[in-house]
Amino acid sequence: MAAENGVASSDHESHTTQVQKIDQIATRLLSSPPILEMENLHKASSNGVSFNIPGWYADVALSWPGEAHLYEMEKVLFHGKSEYHDLFVFQSSSHGKIVILNGDMQLTEKDEFVYQEMLTHLPLCSIPNPKKVLLIGGGDGGILREISRHYSVDRIDICELDKMVIDAYKRFFPDIAIGYNDPRVNVYIGNGVEFLKNVPQATYDVIILDAFHCIGPVEEEVGEKSFLESVAGALRPGGVLGCPAESLWNAEFSLSNSIAKCREAFKGSVNYAWCTTPAYASGMIGFMLCSTEGPPVDFKHPVNPLNPENYGVAKGPPRFYNSEVHTAAFSLPSFAKKMFGSKILSTYE
Amino acid sequence: MAAENGVASSDHESHTTQVQKIDQIATRLLSSPPILEMENLHKASSNGVSFNIPGWYADVALSWPGEAHLYEMEKVLFHGKSEYHDLFVFQSSSHGKIVILNGDMQLTEKDEFVYQEMLTHLPLCSIPNPKKVLLIGGGDGGILREISRHYSVDRIDICELDKMVIDAYKRFFPDIAIGYNDPRVNVYIGNGVEFLKNVPQATYDVIILDAFHCIGPVEEEVGEKSFLESVAGALRPGGVLGCPAESLWNAEFSLSNSIAKCREAFKGSVNYAWCTTPAYASGMIGFMLCSTEGPPVDFKHPVNPLNPENYGVAKGPPRFYNSEVHTAAFSLPSFAKKMFGSKILSTYE
Repeated sequence: MAAENGVASSDHESHTTQVQKIDQIATRLLSSPPILEMENLHKASSNGVSFNIPGWYADVALSWPGEAHLYEMEKVLFHGKSEYHDLFVFQSSSHGKIVILNGDMQLTEKDEFVYQEMLTHLPLCSIPNPKKVLLIGGGDGGILREISRHYSVDRIDICELDKMVIDAYKRFFPDIAIGYNDPRVNVYIGNGVEFLKNVPQATYDVIILDAFHCIGPVEEEVGEKSFLESVAGALRPGGVLGCPAESLWNAEFSLSNSIAKCREAFKGSVNYAWCTTPAYASGMIGFMLCSTEGPPVDFKHPVNPLNPENYGVAKGPPRFYNSEVHTAAFSLPSFAKKMFGSKILSTYE
Repeated sequence: MAAENGVASSDHESHTTQVQKIDQIATRLLSSPPILEMENLHKASSNGVSFNIPGWYADVALSWPGEAHLYEMEKVLFHGKSEYHDLFVFQSSSHGKIVILNGDMQLTEKDEFVYQEMLTHLPLCSIPNPKKVLLIGGGDGGILREISRHYSVDRIDICELDKMVIDAYKRFFPDIAIGYNDPRVNVYIGNGVEFLKNVPQATYDVIILDAFHCIGPVEEEVGEKSFLESVAGALRPGGVLGCPAESLWNAEFSLSNSIAKCREAFKGSVNYAWCTTPAYASGMIGFMLCSTEGPPVDFKHPVNPLNPENYGVAKGPPRFYNSEVHTAAFSLPSFAKKMFGSKILSTYE
């Protein structure tokens, strides 16, 4: 669907070109807050709908045509543009502060902790004693906050493209950006793809991708084969990747294809988990977990349980994650098992 | 929140009065489809927002102020009013046919099976050999379709208030209303509360409530004590109730209070499960499972696994439910465990 809109074309264009394209849309989307225009973004049959509702923000995702989620805005807090991003922050009446990045919902204060905790602890709790962790993207600092709960970790590298993102979060979301307070954190401002090219083989125990799009039906994102291979190369044998993956409710998403692609690049275990996230389309998001060849990893059964008493730099215990929801997150509905196919099985399915 | 809008007041008014009130709102809501007005339904700070978007339906729930979910309408299929209900059916571009009952989202073709399967199989798979089942509400027939997969059942009674609902589903949703084709089904048209008064004690193994509102913060619904007690009385010792419960994301919902209320009425096990449902506010819905005093019931670990080869009158196997998602549905995020409290524990928590 997305490809038809001419926004996410299937040729392998550079990340910069993508960002520029998205930027153009974002400019249209955000040209006149608090009244946001969305003309012609929907498929043709909607005849160019425009959601002009004063005081409300309409969240529309190109890969979810025919629906929109509206939020009442109490106050526009920030609207900035950098070389890479259009960042829009507003106070909603129902979900706390909300961040829109390049026209896409990034997070709401109401439920950000679910995504941050699951994307962090699913991989980190799946291997014993993780020490070196790389985060690509995640400039908000929420994943850093969650990594901080792991005392075994001695080095946390983050490669974020856009300093504006970091600065905005530090200003408007101190409880998220608090992750930067961890003294183990090393910040690199730059392109994650380039950063990975310079990482020596087998450097990290865990890599978390919190950038680009989800693993899913659109090709030119984290799912690109050469990129996944560079991630696998940067991981030690039996090291793990955690990244967001498309919702099971996205009709274009083939879980089977995505798992096959990851399996080819990583050669260890591959598994898919999901959880409730009201802010994202369909109310859920998925996660892809991959391990490289080496000591086997059983993602479904965490071997490194999180001690909820270890806050790290966070101000309290995890609000969503616990070992029980970790395992439950891998339970697939029957339609997803069918989509998953019988041919492709994770090492520990 | 709902109480403040004067729609769901906290005094124990009769169901009929409630229905009339809801009806008045529905009349306003549905007065001019396909352009639906929602003026003054939001809290005052939204200054009387009106979502007038030609060709789109705006789903707004009184208990979820400050947000709305919009669906592109391709065609209005039905708009009927009975003594009890305002029923609006349209073809959406993204979720198949959608049904709005008294202004509330009832179901979408895209995800109806999740709710129907979970609400049915969570209770029925939790006890051995269920024979007599009562469904209150559920006039669409989807729960009947799911009960039909259980070969141990020899009697299925349904008490539905409104014949118009049944007729509309038979006309527009033959794959849902197919549940009525099961020869074990006995249909009673009438008020569920009155029906229960005439049920001899200890008649049913399972009662499923698919009517009124969820178990949740609003008092005058299935959560009313005398009503819950009449349900408990109609169940045999160790019999079970399944009914929808509020989403964990509803800020007004106290899981602890709801469990305490159910425990008082049922005196056996009480537990809460949840699952992904994109059509409902926050993208998830909960279920309350209660058993009466008698043989203990461990809702989390099904003793009566569903045979997916037994279709009953359905056209295929379940699309969501399996034993793994059954157990996973009871896994609570940490914030819900905290909400649940340490004082109140289910027999089999």
